[in-house]
Parts: sequence; C-alpha cells; structure tokens
Amino acid sequence: MKWITVPEEGLSLRDVRRLTERSVNLSAEVEASVSAILKDVRENGDAAVRALTEKFDGVTLSDFRVTEEEIEEALTLIEPGMLDVLKEARDNIAAFHQEQKKESWIKEFRPGVRLGEQYEPIQRVGVYVPGGLAAYPSTVLMDTVPAFVAGCPSVVMTTPPGKDGEVNPNILAAAYVSGVKEIYKVGGAQGIAMLAYGTETVEPVFKIAGPGNAFVAMAKRLVFGTVGIDMIAGPSEVCCVADGSANPEWIAADLLSQAEHDRRAAVFLITPDADFGKKVEEAMTRQTKERNRKDIIESSIGDYAKAFLCQTPEECFDIVNKIAPEHLEIELPDPEKYLPLVVNAGAIFLGKWTSEPLGDYMAGPNHTLPTSGTAAFSSPLGVYDFMKHSSVEIYNKEAFHAVAPKVMKLALAEGLDAHAAAVEVRYNEQ
Amino acid sequence: MKWITVPEEGLSLRDVRRLTERSVNLSAEVEASVSAILKDVRENGDAAVRALTEKFDGVTLSDFRVTEEEIEEALTLIEPGMLDVLKEARDNIAAFHQEQKKESWIKEFRPGVRLGEQYEPIQRVGVYVPGGLAAYPSTVLMDTVPAFVAGCPSVVMTTPPGKDGEVNPNILAAAYVSGVKEIYKVGGAQGIAMLAYGTETVEPVFKIAGPGNAFVAMAKRLVFGTVGIDMIAGPSEVCCVADGSANPEWIAADLLSQAEHDRRAAVFLITPDADFGKKVEEAMTRQTKERNRKDIIESSIGDYAKAFLCQTPEECFDIVNKIAPEHLEIELPDPEKYLPLVVNAGAIFLGKWTSEPLGDYMAGPNHTLPTSGTAAFSSPLGVYDFMKHSSVEIYNKEAFHAVAPKVMKLALAEGLDAHAAAVEVRYNEQ
Repeated sequence: MKWITVPEEGLSLRDVRRLTERSVNLSAEVEASVSAILKDVRENGDAAVRALTEKFDGVTLSDFRVTEEEIEEALTLIEPGMLDVLKEARDNIAAFHQEQKKESWIKEFRPGVRLGEQYEPIQRVGVYVPGGLAAYPSTVLMDTVPAFVAGCPSVVMTTPPGKDGEVNPNILAAAYVSGVKEIYKVGGAQGIAMLAYGTETVEPVFKIAGPGNAFVAMAKRLVFGTVGIDMIAGPSEVCCVADGSANPEWIAADLLSQAEHDRRAAVFLITPDADFGKKVEEAMTRQTKERNRKDIIESSIGDYAKAFLCQTPEECFDIVNKIAPEHLEIELPDPEKYLPLVVNAGAIFLGKWTSEPLGDYMAGPNHTLPTSGTAAFSSPLGVYDFMKHSSVEIYNKEAFHAVAPKVMKLALAEGLDAHAAAVEVRYNEQ
Repeated sequence: MKWITVPEEGLSLRDVRRLTERSVNLSAEVEASVSAILKDVRENGDAAVRALTEKFDGVTLSDFRVTEEEIEEALTLIEPGMLDVLKEARDNIAAFHQEQKKESWIKEFRPGVRLGEQYEPIQRVGVYVPGGLAAYPSTVLMDTVPAFVAGCPSVVMTTPPGKDGEVNPNILAAAYVSGVKEIYKVGGAQGIAMLAYGTETVEPVFKIAGPGNAFVAMAKRLVFGTVGIDMIAGPSEVCCVADGSANPEWIAADLLSQAEHDRRAAVFLITPDADFGKKVEEAMTRQTKERNRKDIIESSIGDYAKAFLCQTPEECFDIVNKIAPEHLEIELPDPEKYLPLVVNAGAIFLGKWTSEPLGDYMAGPNHTLPTSGTAAFSSPLGVYDFMKHSSVEIYNKEAFHAVAPKVMKLALAEGLDAHAAAVEVRYNEQ
C-alpha cells in the first residue's frame, strides 16, 4: 500500500486524480472489433448472433432463448435455502427502490398556465448479465428489480452461455425471483447488438443496463444514442475513512473484499492515525493469504492501494470528495455527523456494522454505482433509470395573449420568424 | 408532405422508424478530426485552445475569458425591453424547475436498518452555447437556470466568438440574467475539450450540457465518461395530432416553426381527417413563401414532412408513441383526455392556445428535449441533470447479525470469499 502524507494545504483535484488513476481497457482494436460485431448483427440478425455465439462462446444454439423448462430445472440445481435468500434480497431492493418512483403532476403556475410532468416507464428494457467467473445473481436482482418497480412492461435479459450451452443456475434463479421471463443466451458485444437493434426473433429494447467486460462496455458506448444506456462501468473502488477507534482487522477485510473483484480495483484508506493505518496494512497482508482470489487481491493492492494520512476530518473528506469513490465507509465515532462533509460518493456505509458487502447483496440500495470518480457527476442505478417523463404545457386564451408579444420578441431576436408567426397567427385572430 | 394511410392493424415500430428516419451527420472523418482536437487541448492546454480558435473562428484572442466590461457593454447593445423579457423567461423557468429539486432523506426500513439518499449538486458544470446563426439566448437560460436551481456552486459557459472576437450581446445578456459569471469565447470541439480536461487557466468541469453542431456532438460523445453529458441532440421534430376542429392555418404555422430550425428537422401531422390535412398542407405551402428561412423550410418539409391518416384517436397515439417525438401538439377537442394515451414524447402541448414556441421561450419547462425518437428512453433537461446522489446505508449490531449469514451465503455462491470474510470477521466477534 502506498502512503501519502497529505500536506496542510491539502491536495489539488489534479494531484488526487493522478494518485488514483488506473489503466483503461478501451483500445482502438476493441472498438474496431466491436463495430464489426454490431454491424454484423444489425445486418444479419439471428444468423449473426448464432455465428458469433459459436465463435466466442464455443456453443451452437439453434434457439438462444432460455426455455421455461430450463428455468424450472435451475431451481432444482441451486443450493438449499438460496431461493429464500434471493427473495429476501429482492424484497429489500424493491422496498428501497419504491421510494424512487415518481408520479405525474400538473399544477397551475400562473393564471391560465398549467404545467407538469407525465412519468412513464420505459416500454422495453434490456439487462446484460455477465457470465463465466463473474456470474453474479445479485447483479440480476440489482438491475432488474428497479425496472419492475418502475413499471416497465417488458424486461429482457441476456447473458453468455457456458461451454455446455447452459446458463448458471443461480443467474436463472435470480431472474425467476425478479420476474424476468424473456432471457437469451447471448453474451458480449453481440448480446448488446441484439438488444439495441433487434433481430427477426428479438424485439429491440429502448435502454440497456448492466455491467460487462471491455467488449460489452465498448458496445454500450457505441449503441448509446440508438438506445439509452445506464453507465459505462469502469474499475471499481472502496474508500475507508477510519481512525484508531475502528478495528483494523475489520477495515482490512472490507478493503480486501473490494480488491478481490478485479486487478484494476482500487482501495483507499484515509486516516488521521498512522499507527492504525499500519495495523490495517499488516492485517491486509495477513488476511490476503487466506483468500481464494489472493492473486487478484495482491495485484490490485500492489498497483492501486493507497493510504492517505491526514490531520483533520475535514482534510479526510476533502480527499474523499476528490476521489469521488464508488463505495465510502466511514468508521469514525458518531459517523453520521460526517455526512454533511461528503459531496461525492456512490454509496456511503456508516459505522462499524455496515460492512460494504451488506450493500452488495441485501441492504436494498443498488450495488450498481458510479465508479472511477464518476460519482462526481452521476448516481447509483435506480428506478429513475427505467422511467422517463414528458413535460406537459397548457395555456388558456388569456394566458396566451399575455405572453404572446414577449415570445414573438424573443423569436425574432433569434432570427426565427416562423416561430414568431405561429404565435402571431393566433394573436391576430384574438 | 408525404401521406401515409395507416392500415387498420396499425404500423409496426420498424415501419414507423423507417418512415421517420433522417440522415445522420456523424462520420468517421468528424471523429478523427475531433479526436485530434481533444488530444491537442488535453496535452497543450491554453496554447491549443488559442491556436484552434485562430484556425476555426479566425480570431486571435490573448485572453479568451469574457470580461465584466464586455458583459456590461452587451447590456447596452440589446434591444430595449429585452432584459425584462429575459428576466421573465428566467423566472418562469426557475419556478417550473424548482419542482424538480430533490431533498436528501433517511428512513428506517427494517429494525436497525436505516437507508436513504443524500443529494448534492454537481460541483462544477459547463454549458456549451452555439454561436453564429444559431446564437440563441433562450438556450442559455434553459441550460443554466436548472443548474443554478440545482445549487451548482460553479456554472461555466463557453461559446464561439464572432469574427470580431466578440460574443452575441443577447447571449451575454441571457448569461447575465441567469447569473453565469465565468464565460469563455471558445467554440467547437476545442470548447468541449477545454471544459472536460481543463487547461492552465480553466478548471475542468464534471458535466457538460448544451447543443452544438456535428463537431460539438462528437466531442461530447468522446469525452463522455471523463465527464457526464446531458444528451447527444439529433435533428429535432414536431408532431401535431389534430382534427377538423383545429384551425389549419395555426397548425401549418406550428409545423413550419419547427421546420425552420434545420434542413434535417421533421414535421409530422397525424389526423383522422384527410380534408383537414389537405388544408394544413395548402396553408404550409402558402405560409412558407412569407418566411425568411424558406429555403430551410422547403428542404426539411420536402425531405421529412409526413402526414399519417388514421381512423381513431387510439391509432393516432399509437403512431405518436412509435415516433416518440420531441414536441407533441394535441389539438383535438378536450385535449387533456388524451394524455393517458401518450407514452413517448419530449414535451406535450395541449390545446389550441399552447403553440409550441411558447414552450421554446417562456412557459417554464425546458426546451432541451430528447430528439429523434430518444423520448422513448429519456427526459427533458432538468434539475436532476445537475444533481446526483449517494445512497446512505446504516446497520446497527442486531440488524447486522440478522442478515450476516445470508450475505455470506450469497457472497460464497458468487465465489467472492473476501466479501464473505468481511462479514464473518464481524459476525465471529459478536
């Protein structure tokens, strides 16, 4: 873990960005290869999807839609008790996300002027779910439950098939629990292309959510505009602000839980207590040896772990806000009092019992969070990502007459005389 | 105007898309040229901005920040009464957008489990404002007022200089009225690059909003991820649903007001009344001759105007929802009763007095709207585009113990034993 002693005047945004930046996977080759896949699926539909699945996943599928029988079989293959745990997670996620639902409204702002917003769910949305080693049923719940809470009438999922042509049973069980009935065994850029453009057998969607590898991320970037996308997820990170009152073993374990995700994951410890920091570091080294994914952990810790030594809480949170971490743990005495100091973070975990993995699985808020500093300008995935609204504008005759000359004045100042004329033709007729 | 008689069984989404699609400006050459500009500004900062402004705008600026004196001078150059109209527009926009502001909340969902959302304005945002022929003070208000309502502490604007090195006085007056104090005379892709990466003299922003030409749109697309962006605006359109009870002259004028924007603008008339439609078409032909921008209008009408002849209101709104128009006018008797039939539209203008240009300037809702069918998955620009939130999660000891075994079960099912360990280390210590 690299140590940085923060000077009294703090660090600039530029300094913090340089200290926390990571390698980026996007390359011109990935773009060229993904562009070719998108074009192929757009032009050749199902045949392209089938051929690309054969090429990249090594399986030949005559029908790439998951059948009801496959879902029923998956339910018999999962661990005992798993279905109940998935249902409890689903209920917690639904309860939290219910708070995000928006209602339509219309209100009179001025005499004769009624304005409002009409909310509607997006009519058809697609969720990409990674397969292989990163097959996470929690992601299925986190990405589809908000769509159902939003009221989306059509929620479709796509995920790469395994070598045996089947989907991980935990993934199918999570889809079952969430209520997703239309599931395809198509991964990678071809999965994104199938959702964005549609094929002979698959209707296109209007928006795509969900994480994926570099090819999936590039495909989402390239179809953005044709469809909406949730975000381009970068490498993730956790940031702990803790002092000597915290248990170093617990903090170390939390940091490792983020490091195991990815060689490009980053962990940040921000503390006013150097001795405590050293204890965390020792515990990290010791605990890493016991972890299954210790190679990944050692790699990400070696490259991207940083400890910032600060003097005051204000200094600590200044660094936090410049990092804009995906996950922020505050393990200081009376942690809630520091909330007003947090400006940029994806999710904030307060106090020693709120270990970050609780939020990954069971708490209820979404675990799809802005990564790599994008929390400075974006929010967790939510119901708002699966709804949209129209403005509603209603003027009566008197209100129209009161405003007409001003609208004409502005339109003519902008050189748009057809705009002015549309108002004038009504104004003249009285 | 091309006429389409909608068959009894309706038209498919694919059919409607084919009938309403327009040429797209994005090209590989634009991408290559914009990429080079972004790289140049990123590496060479102010010097690159200065050189590119010389190259593209033909002016040499030692200092590209607009001075207080320039703003004061602009206020003396605008038409009498213009400042008051701009202020009234600002107040109406602010009043409507105030309704969109979100407050932070925390609530107990289960015993010992408190969850919430902490809202914050984005700390620094940039707004691009086009210059030249498309220098619209209304755009300044529409893009910056919501940022101020959101509470953004730093709102910066950039716009191309004219040949004389000055900015259009109406643009500066609108910025003054809105409260923008940091304004740069930098246009095109170099303006976007300056905002996204910063230079020696300009701090980078976290999010960029505002329309622009093909170079600006491509630059926004390419910096997306480094910063947030509002949307990629495509060619715009208006859709009128009207029957014989409407005044064909008024409908024609409304359609022309959209057509004058751009050769790629589209206008759609959807009606159950062929005779009425013919009257609208005749009025459009007649009125076009009187308009200043008749070349643009003739071009966009010639290429992209369509009339859909339907049997029932349900049929009309089925076409509307498949078009997902930026602007929708409903000029049928008792227009409000059709609101429940509208699923996809950027802004809905109800009744004969609510001519679309009212919404462009004075009504209050934003005129920056999803174009080219993107209203199927996105919303008008709003305060929510200038705020973001963090999830807040707080468990007490008892709540932690109740959930810990379930979290461990899910983490282990996903092969993430460091996640399970972070929970276990707390669970074991009791």
